[in-house]
Amino acid sequence: MNQESTKIPQATAKRLPLYYRFIKNLHSSGKQRVSSKELSEAVKVDSATIRRDFSYFGALGKKGYGYNVNYLLSFFSKTLDQDALTKVVLIGVGNLGTAFLHYNFIKNNNTKIEMAFDVDPGKVGSIIGDVPVYSLDDMEKHLEDNGIEVAIMTVPAGAAQNITDRLVQANIKGILNFTPARLTAPDHIRIHHIDLAVELQSLVYFLKNYSEDDTEMSQEENRT
Amino acid sequence: MNQESTKIPQATAKRLPLYYRFIKNLHSSGKQRVSSKELSEAVKVDSATIRRDFSYFGALGKKGYGYNVNYLLSFFSKTLDQDALTKVVLIGVGNLGTAFLHYNFIKNNNTKIEMAFDVDPGKVGSIIGDVPVYSLDDMEKHLEDNGIEVAIMTVPAGAAQNITDRLVQANIKGILNFTPARLTAPDHIRIHHIDLAVELQSLVYFLKNYSEDDTEMSQEENRT
Repeated sequence: MNQESTKIPQATAKRLPLYYRFIKNLHSSGKQRVSSKELSEAVKVDSATIRRDFSYFGALGKKGYGYNVNYLLSFFSKTLDQDALTKVVLIGVGNLGTAFLHYNFIKNNNTKIEMAFDVDPGKVGSIIGDVPVYSLDDMEKHLEDNGIEVAIMTVPAGAAQNITDRLVQANIKGILNFTPARLTAPDHIRIHHIDLAVELQSLVYFLKNYSEDDTEMSQEENRT
Repeated sequence: MNQESTKIPQATAKRLPLYYRFIKNLHSSGKQRVSSKELSEAVKVDSATIRRDFSYFGALGKKGYGYNVNYLLSFFSKTLDQDALTKVVLIGVGNLGTAFLHYNFIKNNNTKIEMAFDVDPGKVGSIIGDVPVYSLDDMEKHLEDNGIEVAIMTVPAGAAQNITDRLVQANIKGILNFTPARLTAPDHIRIHHIDLAVELQSLVYFLKNYSEDDTEMSQEENRT
């Protein structure tokens, strides 16, 4: 399975979780097939991109029929390895961190926040959204004991690099970085960076510079 | 200026705010030039992509010299229209919304959260991070009075579509959607969607399926 899936381009791979969730909902509601137009409207990706993506999955839609929902569900489930739960920790239980803890990823995902860390004695020892909050001082011990490989970082920017260095030492493989800091880490550590200010500035720039005719959705017709 | 900038591909445009912030910091620290390698390490975009992006900006790096920081700063500042402040509202003052209100975008941006809305009487009338919180019932009146065009949506998923419909009626042009809901809106409304669960699942998928050799950073050498 890994051999197959490594051939999927990264841009396509990024859309996999999105497709998966929609197809899962379709399947739950008893639908047997779906057109690329319906998919396009639901996940807000243009239908030409969807058809190209799906061709990598070996899913070829038929004109007037669309795609087989069962096939897609089974493919996505296998490719996204839904049976293997990935344990995640969250570092920094401020407003953003607390929002994550209440989010309850497990419902739609193969990921679970096992524990959280903070420096505030008022938070250490509490349980938020079923997740225990431990002292940041004890982070290394907890990570090693539990074989955890992924961390969500929602700390102040000034603390981000130091914590990253500690996570690398503790054999973390991936970091989802919500701080504005650009982190330095060895190449084998995968860091995905989501900067809230940049997302907002990007939306504003597109509003000012791209008319509705330039949006992805309207660049092509929905054909399948 | 708009005519020029509309020629920039959307993927390049998305990286503009990121480049801008880094170049601004460089300029503040008195640096005169920067190589694509330094840029690449700082913003975590591979240097071939940076060189291609910068060629759209008319910035051609010289071998052994790099790029002129003043030129880049002036270009980005003009292109991102830093002198024009965009007024933004935030809808839903839960944990995620509160995180945004404390984020203080104005420091690095041309955007400002002018006001927030919530349904909780305990929050309405309060001020969080200098931003007043009003009742969601009064949203339309406030939007019209203040000529606001952008909304950040951090409400429960179940409330998202109804609020979107109201925003469209109130002539909002862009929505930054942080709910898991995929929103339906007319084509002239620009919606950027950030789904925290999908971001986490995407990171996990990449960790499982792409070795370090596949990451963008290591696909090419840094040449400029």
